[in-house]
Amino acid sequence: MQQFRLYIMLFLMVIIPLTVFAEDGSRLWLRFPAKNGISADKIISRGNNPTLNIARKELSSHWQGQAVELRTDRSLKNLKGGYTIKTINNKLVISAEKETGLLYGVYHILRLQQIKSVVTDLDITEKPSYDVRILNHWDNLDGSIERGYAGRSLWKWEELPGKISPRYEEYARANASIGINSVVLNNVNASPDMLRNDYLVKVKALADIFRPYGIRVYLSVNFSSPKALGGLENSDPLDKNVRKWWKDKAAEIYRLIPDFGGFLVKANSEGQPGPQDYGRTHADGANMMADVLKPYNGIVMWRAFVYSPSKEDRAKQAYLEFVPLDGKFRNNVIIQIKNGPIDFQPREAFNPLFGALKKTSEMVEFQITQEYLGQSNHLAYLAPLFKETLESDTYAEGEGSTIARITDGTLHPQKLTAVSAVANIGEDKNWTGHQFAQANWYAFGRLAWNHELNPEQIADEWIKMTFTDDKRFLDPVKDMMLTSRETVVDYMMPLGLHHIFAGGHHYGPEPWGDYKGGRPDWSPVYYHQADAEGLGFNRTKTGSNAVSQYHPPLNEIYGNINTCPENLLLWFHHVPWNYKMKDGKTLWEELCYKYDTGVRNVRRYQVTWDRMQPYVDEQRFAEVQSKLKIQSRDAVWWKDACLLYFQTFSKMPLPYDIERPVHELEDLKKIKLDMGHHN
Amino acid sequence: MQQFRLYIMLFLMVIIPLTVFAEDGSRLWLRFPAKNGISADKIISRGNNPTLNIARKELSSHWQGQAVELRTDRSLKNLKGGYTIKTINNKLVISAEKETGLLYGVYHILRLQQIKSVVTDLDITEKPSYDVRILNHWDNLDGSIERGYAGRSLWKWEELPGKISPRYEEYARANASIGINSVVLNNVNASPDMLRNDYLVKVKALADIFRPYGIRVYLSVNFSSPKALGGLENSDPLDKNVRKWWKDKAAEIYRLIPDFGGFLVKANSEGQPGPQDYGRTHADGANMMADVLKPYNGIVMWRAFVYSPSKEDRAKQAYLEFVPLDGKFRNNVIIQIKNGPIDFQPREAFNPLFGALKKTSEMVEFQITQEYLGQSNHLAYLAPLFKETLESDTYAEGEGSTIARITDGTLHPQKLTAVSAVANIGEDKNWTGHQFAQANWYAFGRLAWNHELNPEQIADEWIKMTFTDDKRFLDPVKDMMLTSRETVVDYMMPLGLHHIFAGGHHYGPEPWGDYKGGRPDWSPVYYHQADAEGLGFNRTKTGSNAVSQYHPPLNEIYGNINTCPENLLLWFHHVPWNYKMKDGKTLWEELCYKYDTGVRNVRRYQVTWDRMQPYVDEQRFAEVQSKLKIQSRDAVWWKDACLLYFQTFSKMPLPYDIERPVHELEDLKKIKLDMGHHN
Repeated sequence: MQQFRLYIMLFLMVIIPLTVFAEDGSRLWLRFPAKNGISADKIISRGNNPTLNIARKELSSHWQGQAVELRTDRSLKNLKGGYTIKTINNKLVISAEKETGLLYGVYHILRLQQIKSVVTDLDITEKPSYDVRILNHWDNLDGSIERGYAGRSLWKWEELPGKISPRYEEYARANASIGINSVVLNNVNASPDMLRNDYLVKVKALADIFRPYGIRVYLSVNFSSPKALGGLENSDPLDKNVRKWWKDKAAEIYRLIPDFGGFLVKANSEGQPGPQDYGRTHADGANMMADVLKPYNGIVMWRAFVYSPSKEDRAKQAYLEFVPLDGKFRNNVIIQIKNGPIDFQPREAFNPLFGALKKTSEMVEFQITQEYLGQSNHLAYLAPLFKETLESDTYAEGEGSTIARITDGTLHPQKLTAVSAVANIGEDKNWTGHQFAQANWYAFGRLAWNHELNPEQIADEWIKMTFTDDKRFLDPVKDMMLTSRETVVDYMMPLGLHHIFAGGHHYGPEPWGDYKGGRPDWSPVYYHQADAEGLGFNRTKTGSNAVSQYHPPLNEIYGNINTCPENLLLWFHHVPWNYKMKDGKTLWEELCYKYDTGVRNVRRYQVTWDRMQPYVDEQRFAEVQSKLKIQSRDAVWWKDACLLYFQTFSKMPLPYDIERPVHELEDLKKIKLDMGHHN
Repeated sequence: MQQFRLYIMLFLMVIIPLTVFAEDGSRLWLRFPAKNGISADKIISRGNNPTLNIARKELSSHWQGQAVELRTDRSLKNLKGGYTIKTINNKLVISAEKETGLLYGVYHILRLQQIKSVVTDLDITEKPSYDVRILNHWDNLDGSIERGYAGRSLWKWEELPGKISPRYEEYARANASIGINSVVLNNVNASPDMLRNDYLVKVKALADIFRPYGIRVYLSVNFSSPKALGGLENSDPLDKNVRKWWKDKAAEIYRLIPDFGGFLVKANSEGQPGPQDYGRTHADGANMMADVLKPYNGIVMWRAFVYSPSKEDRAKQAYLEFVPLDGKFRNNVIIQIKNGPIDFQPREAFNPLFGALKKTSEMVEFQITQEYLGQSNHLAYLAPLFKETLESDTYAEGEGSTIARITDGTLHPQKLTAVSAVANIGEDKNWTGHQFAQANWYAFGRLAWNHELNPEQIADEWIKMTFTDDKRFLDPVKDMMLTSRETVVDYMMPLGLHHIFAGGHHYGPEPWGDYKGGRPDWSPVYYHQADAEGLGFNRTKTGSNAVSQYHPPLNEIYGNINTCPENLLLWFHHVPWNYKMKDGKTLWEELCYKYDTGVRNVRRYQVTWDRMQPYVDEQRFAEVQSKLKIQSRDAVWWKDACLLYFQTFSKMPLPYDIERPVHELEDLKKIKLDMGHHN
């Protein structure tokens, strides 16, 4: 017996350390001290609100510092859900109009503690840049996720509402910790079934869990739901039966979920139904829905991602469809516009709809999930991409008319302000597939709260919270993150190249893709326009004239090959192979060096990461190391595919100081990955 | 009609240049001027010997220089088949004992012409280093080739003797042009059917074609032929019926082929039958055969590649079996010994049998076909490997007892001298699979003729003859060739590592190979002996003591870790991971850098070759470029497989200035190539 106990002890001595230090990434950036926080008497607050209870629990579990007072102060309405943190008599006083503001303030001080920032003499005022900071989940009712790369959907529809996964609350807490306050639960390619009563009951169960964390639930809706689900003859937005159906449905929803946020709609896009099916406009459709939601303070986010199989340059189409409708939308409609006019490419020119709509609320739709950025295999920190869009100056009202200022309501008065992003979250233990993809969820939340933050600050915070503040780790990893998106651009599609991905899964390269019989604008050759003379899409006056959709002086800057930024050169111009770039190289040489630089940088990241081994737990070290190997191989694949293919047009040798291809073009053309849109 | 003719002309103008410049490598190094040679009156010779006819035809077709006289001179017997070339009165006089010597002389001056060497004032005397300069074809009767990587067998047994491929004569001419005078037609793992009369008739057809080119035919024979083919009760070499069977068979062969060369025998090795099956010795077996061949001046080449599944270090076994038999072999027996004691590895210590047999004729067996050197995918110029063996000093009779001097008969009197190599020739248009593998056929022939030549001279000749003498091509390509074998060693098995190939096909890496239930010495783990302490096979006194098989001072030099050449360190020693190498690095670091250097050098070759594009025809350029891509990928595969595997023992990080692995060890372990021994 004595001996048996000894075995048990030895067993535990071996097992326990493994358990304590096992790191699968499931804790995200929420690695507050495990030891107890301050005692109850040092938490001063009144009331029994569920949100307040969470705030108190976070403090009592994790806050190691001075006493904290949580004050609701209805006079702080101007902070729009924000809060203040002030040091008063050695005590931290967090004040906010509402309890969610207090919870945000608590996460703020926990973050300061976690990153070992000073927490004395604080005088902080935080006011969010956007009212609605929203994740779009492209999750289907069958559990699959369109463009999801972190396992299947977090939402277990078949289990709800009876069985509640603990991850629902963990998810809500993670969002609250970075200020995300809204969630669209389902795919924009929406099933009408989403609005069935049994599903709404499931949605209610999630909404009830999210609510204390300040998160409102929204749904993507299928425009033809009245016909498909309600059995009506059609879904014409001007049909009174249709309007009634929506009105009744809204009432049904709000009975279950009084704070329901509203609808996200993909209409008349890529085969989805919409008002144009009945000869109506996007405004007719959006306004009909807005009217039924209005009484409940619900909103409609109407997507501008539309393009028809016409001969018109795809990059121009959203503008052409929506600008004539400017001013015709209800004030609880907001037009949700992808950052670029094509589709979440590694780099795009900004979408010219921003700043073109002057009497209509506009919001950005970013993509956190890396559909076009190596999915969950490639390390690509996206804050620089998000920031690049937000800082883009549209010149809509002269210099300084950035997309940030257009969408946050400071340029044109805009009742509703919002920013959205397609989530990268799935049921994987680490939530996002790649450990570093957590940073993109984090960065979106932080920028949605404060678009003045810069990518470096955010990376700094995230690394300190998620890994360590040891400078031997922090500095090299931050450098890797900050350069990583540009590296992906370099090895995938530099200099403004775009959409030369393999069809369907959009993972690997397929610049030779030319899908006969399909829409031309679904083929890579449509986008790169390579020929014996050169490379790139002529969007100047002599081409599609997409440049005309930009305000002066951008139309001139982009339209002139000599002033067009080189990172967008092939987006706007068909450029001769021997065109002299600013560094004196020819276009062909520059292209070669860009691809080569991309490959070399990934190899550099591999070294960087391997050097980090002493500072990281074993599991996360190994996982990231393994992903970087894939990225390294993929970078070579991209480089070889694109350079060998484009070389068939340029007929020029690769500069001899770049690494030679190791693949045959013909072999690469045969690669067909067994991947779909869905996970 | 007029117009039709024009079309034809235009058609021909397009087609003809393509035909003229199409280069598939089928012409090997025999690219003598296509225009006519000197007129008949400038070729002075007498007689109508078939060999002489060929010599005259080569001159009249290709020789552009002064008049040439071909003189047979029986007094030149001391040149052992060699020749002299002298300028006499503005005329070149080639003299030799026999017509084959004259033919060699003609090829000599054609070579000088081709490489643009001076052909005036010549005073050349050439005497071959070896009497028998022989290719071993490992071709099977079914047309497959063991370890053949250039397509199937050149010998169309099913067509012979009725149908004669023009390639038989082209093959004979190529051999004659470099002095090869003997050929074993079939695999050492010989089918008894080879000695069937119908096959002998086919062999005779080949012998008749080869004879004018000075080439004698030999056959590999199966030791149990008397039983298997003759229906005898056994094949005991001391059985009089067996002896009679062989005697009759010899008579039958020599009736068909009066200049038949003799037999090559693989006996009691890897499952082949042999005299030990009947309790007899190798000497009993070899002498029995030697006796029946003696009347015809035939010889027996008896292979020393034997190792039994005993506990004894495989590297020691040939020595242990053959040294006791020294002096017991007939003088028309020659022991054929692989250059190293294991099996044609990228680098081996030399076989200690060389110099251990003092009263027995010895010859080297090289391998031209790249069984262990990337087959026909990797560029590996093997003259440095051949030369390394020939120059190895055995110290058998004190310093200077090189393998060259042992086998050429200058160290010990040796009636018979010979050198052999396993051919890399198949039915591929370019003969050898890889365009640069032709150089290994060429180099073996040249070294067999004159083992004093150095690899650089041979490469220089070969490049000039096969491609161009343009220095912009010659110098970089020569550098690539001369370093290429060491590069393969670096990325496959540096520092004396050996036989960590995947089982069976021996193409890729499998250092983890541990074939339970099989012979230990067929498993890679047997050879590298990696463990927590270190790496390498202890063949010192504290280990297998294979070092004792070497003459002093080599036994001491190899046996002492401090004096053992580092390129054989892991061949002879089990070396601690942190052992300090001469450059100050640890063994582990050195190993990493070697693999990395191998990869980098292949990438360098890719650049070198790409730069050569202006100087090479399109087809050969593209073929070599493509092979280098494979080699480049394979080098990374080798490096990753070996370093990741050995790292599981060393537990040390890869130095951070080497490129990181891009594969997972577990994935590499799953690779099973669909390849056999045979092509």
